[in-house]
Amino acid sequence: MSRHQEKAHLVTQFSDGIKKALDGKVFPTLVTIQPDGSPQTTPVCVKREGGDVLISTTVDRRKTHNMQRDPRVSVMVQPLDNPYVYAELRGTATVSTEGGQELADELSRKYTGMSYAEFYPESVNEGQRVVVRVTVNKVVGTL
Amino acid sequence: MSRHQEKAHLVTQFSDGIKKALDGKVFPTLVTIQPDGSPQTTPVCVKREGGDVLISTTVDRRKTHNMQRDPRVSVMVQPLDNPYVYAELRGTATVSTEGGQELADELSRKYTGMSYAEFYPESVNEGQRVVVRVTVNKVVGTL
Repeated sequence: MSRHQEKAHLVTQFSDGIKKALDGKVFPTLVTIQPDGSPQTTPVCVKREGGDVLISTTVDRRKTHNMQRDPRVSVMVQPLDNPYVYAELRGTATVSTEGGQELADELSRKYTGMSYAEFYPESVNEGQRVVVRVTVNKVVGTL
Repeated sequence: MSRHQEKAHLVTQFSDGIKKALDGKVFPTLVTIQPDGSPQTTPVCVKREGGDVLISTTVDRRKTHNMQRDPRVSVMVQPLDNPYVYAELRGTATVSTEGGQELADELSRKYTGMSYAEFYPESVNEGQRVVVRVTVNKVVGTL
Protein backbone atom coordinates (compact mmCIF):
# COMPACT_ATOMS: atom_id res chain seq x y z
CA MET A 1 0.00 0.00 0.00
CA SER A 2 1.41 3.37 -0.97
CA ARG A 3 1.80 6.20 1.50
CA HIS A 4 -0.95 8.06 -0.36
CA GLN A 5 -3.38 5.18 0.12
CA GLU A 6 -2.49 4.89 3.79
CA LYS A 7 -3.22 8.57 4.35
CA ALA A 8 -6.56 8.25 2.60
CA HIS A 9 -7.64 5.76 5.24
CA LEU A 10 -6.70 7.85 8.24
CA VAL A 11 -9.64 9.00 10.34
CA THR A 12 -9.36 12.31 12.16
CA GLN A 13 -9.18 11.77 15.91
CA PHE A 14 -11.14 14.34 17.89
CA SER A 15 -10.09 15.42 21.38
CA ASP A 16 -12.36 14.51 24.29
CA GLY A 17 -13.45 18.16 24.44
CA ILE A 18 -14.50 18.16 20.79
CA LYS A 19 -16.32 14.83 21.17
CA LYS A 20 -18.19 16.10 24.24
CA ALA A 21 -19.18 19.31 22.44
CA LEU A 22 -20.34 17.57 19.24
CA ASP A 23 -22.23 14.91 21.18
CA GLY A 24 -24.01 17.58 23.26
CA LYS A 25 -26.26 20.47 22.29
CA VAL A 26 -23.85 22.70 20.42
CA PHE A 27 -24.66 25.07 17.55
CA PRO A 28 -21.57 25.20 15.32
CA THR A 29 -21.18 27.60 12.45
CA LEU A 30 -20.92 25.94 9.04
CA VAL A 31 -18.96 27.95 6.50
CA THR A 32 -19.31 27.41 2.77
CA ILE A 33 -17.85 29.29 -0.18
CA GLN A 34 -20.10 31.45 -2.37
CA PRO A 35 -19.79 31.37 -6.18
CA ASP A 36 -17.77 34.62 -6.02
CA GLY A 37 -15.31 33.12 -3.50
CA SER A 38 -16.59 35.00 -0.44
CA PRO A 39 -17.67 33.15 2.73
CA GLN A 40 -21.24 32.18 3.68
CA THR A 41 -22.15 31.06 7.21
CA THR A 42 -25.08 29.41 8.99
CA PRO A 43 -25.54 27.90 12.45
CA VAL A 44 -26.25 24.17 12.34
CA CYS A 45 -27.21 21.23 14.53
CA VAL A 46 -24.78 18.32 14.31
CA LYS A 47 -24.05 14.76 15.22
CA ARG A 48 -20.68 13.06 15.25
CA GLU A 49 -19.92 9.80 13.49
CA GLY A 50 -16.28 8.82 14.01
CA GLY A 51 -14.20 11.59 12.43
CA ASP A 52 -17.15 12.92 10.44
CA VAL A 53 -19.69 15.59 11.32
CA LEU A 54 -23.25 15.12 10.03
CA ILE A 55 -25.52 18.09 9.32
CA SER A 56 -29.13 18.21 8.09
CA THR A 57 -30.40 20.72 5.55
CA THR A 58 -32.48 20.81 2.36
CA VAL A 59 -31.62 20.47 -1.32
CA ASP A 60 -32.57 24.04 -2.13
CA ARG A 61 -30.52 26.02 0.38
CA ARG A 62 -27.69 28.29 -0.63
CA LYS A 63 -25.21 26.35 1.49
CA THR A 64 -26.20 23.11 -0.25
CA HIS A 65 -25.56 24.57 -3.69
CA ASN A 66 -22.28 26.02 -2.42
CA MET A 67 -21.04 22.66 -1.10
CA GLN A 68 -22.05 20.86 -4.28
CA ARG A 69 -19.92 23.33 -6.23
CA ASP A 70 -17.00 23.61 -3.75
CA PRO A 71 -16.97 20.95 -1.01
CA ARG A 72 -14.37 22.68 1.18
CA VAL A 73 -16.02 23.75 4.43
CA SER A 74 -15.17 24.80 7.95
CA VAL A 75 -17.17 23.98 11.08
CA MET A 76 -16.55 26.27 14.07
CA VAL A 77 -17.41 24.64 17.40
CA GLN A 78 -17.78 26.80 20.53
CA PRO A 79 -19.40 25.34 23.66
CA LEU A 80 -22.19 27.64 24.88
CA ASP A 81 -20.96 27.27 28.49
CA ASN A 82 -17.33 28.10 27.71
CA PRO A 83 -16.94 30.43 24.71
CA TYR A 84 -13.23 30.98 25.37
CA VAL A 85 -12.38 27.58 23.89
CA TYR A 86 -13.13 26.51 20.35
CA ALA A 87 -12.29 24.07 17.59
CA GLU A 88 -12.24 24.77 13.89
CA LEU A 89 -12.90 21.59 11.93
CA ARG A 90 -11.78 21.89 8.32
CA GLY A 91 -12.92 19.30 5.87
CA THR A 92 -14.75 18.21 2.79
CA ALA A 93 -18.52 17.91 2.52
CA THR A 94 -20.58 15.40 0.60
CA VAL A 95 -24.31 15.93 0.12
CA SER A 96 -26.76 13.03 -0.17
CA THR A 97 -30.55 12.69 -0.13
CA GLU A 98 -30.24 9.19 1.36
CA GLY A 99 -31.35 9.21 5.00
CA GLY A 100 -32.14 12.92 4.83
CA GLN A 101 -35.47 12.78 6.69
CA GLU A 102 -34.13 10.29 9.26
CA LEU A 103 -31.21 12.59 10.13
CA ALA A 104 -33.54 15.60 10.46
CA ASP A 105 -35.65 13.61 12.94
CA GLU A 106 -32.61 12.30 14.82
CA LEU A 107 -31.12 15.78 15.23
CA SER A 108 -34.47 17.25 16.20
CA ARG A 109 -34.86 14.63 18.94
CA LYS A 110 -31.30 15.25 20.12
CA TYR A 111 -31.79 19.01 20.41
CA THR A 112 -35.49 19.35 21.23
CA GLY A 113 -36.83 15.95 22.28
CA MET A 114 -39.39 16.13 19.45
CA SER A 115 -39.56 14.76 15.92
CA TYR A 116 -38.74 17.35 13.28
CA ALA A 117 -42.39 17.63 12.18
CA GLU A 118 -43.45 18.18 15.79
CA PHE A 119 -40.76 20.80 16.41
CA TYR A 120 -41.24 22.60 13.11
CA PRO A 121 -44.67 21.90 11.54
CA GLU A 122 -43.94 24.26 8.64
CA SER A 123 -41.25 21.78 7.53
CA VAL A 124 -43.84 20.07 5.32
CA ASN A 125 -43.28 22.97 2.93
CA GLU A 126 -39.51 22.57 2.87
CA GLY A 127 -37.46 21.06 0.09
CA GLN A 128 -36.16 17.49 0.31
CA ARG A 129 -33.90 16.95 3.32
CA VAL A 130 -30.29 16.00 2.69
CA VAL A 131 -27.42 14.65 4.78
CA VAL A 132 -24.26 16.74 4.73
CA ARG A 133 -21.30 14.60 5.78
CA VAL A 134 -18.20 16.64 6.61
CA THR A 135 -15.07 14.50 6.60
CA VAL A 136 -12.66 16.46 8.76
CA ASN A 137 -9.03 16.58 7.68
CA LYS A 138 -7.68 19.29 9.96
CA VAL A 139 -8.49 20.47 13.48
CA VAL A 140 -7.37 23.89 14.76
CA GLY A 141 -8.07 25.39 18.18
CA THR A 142 -8.05 24.84 21.89
CA LEU A 143 -11.03 22.58 22.56
CA MET B 1 -24.22 63.30 -6.63
CA SER B 2 -24.51 60.10 -8.65
CA ARG B 3 -26.44 57.09 -7.43
CA HIS B 4 -23.15 55.23 -7.04
CA GLN B 5 -21.81 57.92 -4.70
CA GLU B 6 -25.02 57.90 -2.72
CA LYS B 7 -24.81 54.18 -2.18
CA ALA B 8 -21.22 54.46 -1.02
CA HIS B 9 -22.39 56.65 1.85
CA LEU B 10 -25.11 54.31 3.09
CA VAL B 11 -24.45 52.86 6.54
CA THR B 12 -25.83 49.43 7.35
CA GLN B 13 -28.57 49.63 9.95
CA PHE B 14 -28.48 46.82 12.48
CA SER B 15 -31.63 45.48 14.14
CA ASP B 16 -32.05 46.05 17.88
CA GLY B 17 -31.25 42.36 18.45
CA ILE B 18 -27.96 42.64 16.58
CA LYS B 19 -27.03 45.85 18.38
CA LYS B 20 -27.77 44.27 21.76
CA ALA B 21 -25.71 41.19 20.90
CA LEU B 22 -22.71 43.14 19.56
CA ASP B 23 -22.80 45.56 22.50
CA GLY B 24 -22.86 42.67 25.00
CA LYS B 25 -20.48 39.80 25.60
CA VAL B 26 -20.82 37.82 22.40
CA PHE B 27 -18.17 35.69 20.71
CA PRO B 28 -18.84 35.85 16.97
CA THR B 29 -17.04 33.73 14.43
CA LEU B 30 -14.91 35.69 11.97
CA VAL B 31 -14.48 33.97 8.62
CA THR B 32 -11.64 34.82 6.26
CA ILE B 33 -10.57 33.24 2.99
CA GLN B 34 -7.35 31.20 2.79
CA PRO B 35 -4.91 31.63 -0.13
CA ASP B 36 -6.37 28.44 -1.70
CA GLY B 37 -9.94 29.80 -1.49
CA SER B 38 -11.10 27.63 1.42
CA PRO B 39 -12.59 29.16 4.60
CA GLN B 40 -10.73 29.92 7.86
CA THR B 41 -12.58 30.69 11.09
CA THR B 42 -11.77 32.07 14.53
CA PRO B 43 -13.90 33.27 17.45
CA VAL B 44 -13.45 36.96 18.20
CA CYS B 45 -14.38 39.68 20.67
CA VAL B 46 -16.06 42.67 19.08
CA LYS B 47 -17.35 46.18 19.52
CA ARG B 48 -19.86 47.98 17.36
CA GLU B 49 -19.28 51.40 15.85
CA GLY B 50 -22.28 52.46 13.79
CA GLY B 51 -22.57 49.93 10.97
CA ASP B 52 -19.02 48.66 11.48
CA VAL B 53 -17.75 45.82 13.65
CA LEU B 54 -14.30 46.28 15.25
CA ILE B 55 -12.08 43.30 16.06
CA SER B 56 -8.64 43.17 17.69
CA THR B 57 -5.86 40.83 16.55
CA THR B 58 -2.14 40.95 15.72
CA VAL B 59 -0.19 41.62 12.52
CA ASP B 60 1.17 38.10 12.29
CA ARG B 61 -1.98 35.99 12.48
CA ARG B 62 -3.22 33.92 9.59
CA LYS B 63 -6.54 35.76 9.55
CA THR B 64 -4.74 39.11 9.29
CA HIS B 65 -2.75 37.96 6.25
CA ASN B 66 -5.93 36.53 4.75
CA MET B 67 -7.86 39.81 5.14
CA GLN B 68 -4.99 41.84 3.70
CA ARG B 69 -5.07 39.62 0.61
CA ASP B 70 -8.89 39.24 0.34
CA PRO B 71 -10.93 41.66 2.50
CA ARG B 72 -14.24 39.83 2.08
CA VAL B 73 -15.29 38.44 5.46
CA SER B 74 -18.31 37.10 7.30
CA VAL B 75 -19.10 37.59 10.99
CA MET B 76 -21.54 35.07 12.49
CA VAL B 77 -23.29 36.38 15.60
CA GLN B 78 -25.11 33.94 17.90
CA PRO B 79 -26.19 35.07 21.38
CA LEU B 80 -24.95 32.57 24.00
CA ASP B 81 -28.33 32.68 25.75
CA ASN B 82 -30.39 32.05 22.60
CA PRO B 83 -28.50 30.02 19.99
CA TYR B 84 -31.60 29.53 17.84
CA VAL B 85 -31.30 33.06 16.47
CA TYR B 86 -28.34 34.41 14.55
CA ALA B 87 -27.12 37.10 12.23
CA GLU B 88 -24.55 36.73 9.49
CA LEU B 89 -22.83 40.05 8.83
CA ARG B 90 -21.10 40.10 5.46
CA GLY B 91 -18.67 42.85 4.73
CA THR B 92 -15.24 44.13 3.90
CA ALA B 93 -12.35 44.31 6.36
CA THR B 94 -9.62 46.91 6.64
CA VAL B 95 -6.59 46.30 8.86
CA SER B 96 -4.73 49.12 10.60
CA THR B 97 -2.07 49.32 13.31
CA GLU B 98 -3.44 52.70 14.45
CA GLY B 99 -5.17 52.33 17.80
CA GLY B 100 -4.36 48.62 17.92
CA GLN B 101 -3.29 48.48 21.56
CA GLU B 102 -6.11 50.77 22.67
CA LEU B 103 -8.75 48.51 21.08
CA ALA B 104 -7.19 45.41 22.68
CA ASP B 105 -7.47 47.11 26.07
CA GLU B 106 -11.00 48.35 25.43
CA LEU B 107 -12.25 44.90 24.37
CA SER B 108 -10.47 43.24 27.28
CA ARG B 109 -12.18 45.60 29.72
CA LYS B 110 -15.54 45.00 28.03
CA TYR B 111 -15.25 41.22 28.26
CA THR B 112 -13.17 40.66 31.39
CA GLY B 113 -13.06 43.93 33.35
CA MET B 114 -9.25 43.90 33.12
CA SER B 115 -6.72 45.57 30.85
CA TYR B 116 -5.36 43.23 28.17
CA ALA B 117 -1.98 42.94 29.91
CA GLU B 118 -3.72 42.02 33.18
CA PHE B 119 -5.99 39.47 31.51
CA TYR B 120 -3.28 37.93 29.34
CA PRO B 121 0.24 38.65 30.66
CA GLU B 122 1.83 36.58 27.88
CA SER B 123 0.58 39.23 25.45
CA VAL B 124 3.94 41.04 25.82
CA ASN B 125 5.31 38.36 23.48
CA GLU B 126 2.61 38.91 20.84
CA GLY B 127 3.03 40.73 17.54
CA GLN B 128 1.82 44.30 17.12
CA ARG B 129 -1.92 44.67 17.73
CA VAL B 130 -4.12 45.79 14.84
CA VAL B 131 -7.66 47.07 14.44
CA VAL B 132 -9.82 45.09 12.03
CA ARG B 133 -12.75 47.23 10.90
CA VAL B 134 -15.48 45.25 9.16
CA THR B 135 -17.79 47.49 7.15
CA VAL B 136 -20.97 45.44 6.86
CA ASN B 137 -22.80 45.55 3.54
CA LYS B 138 -25.27 42.69 4.00
CA VAL B 139 -27.10 41.19 6.97
CA VAL B 140 -28.68 37.72 6.80
CA GLY B 141 -30.50 35.92 9.58
CA THR B 142 -33.12 36.11 12.28
CA LEU B 143 -31.54 38.21 15.02
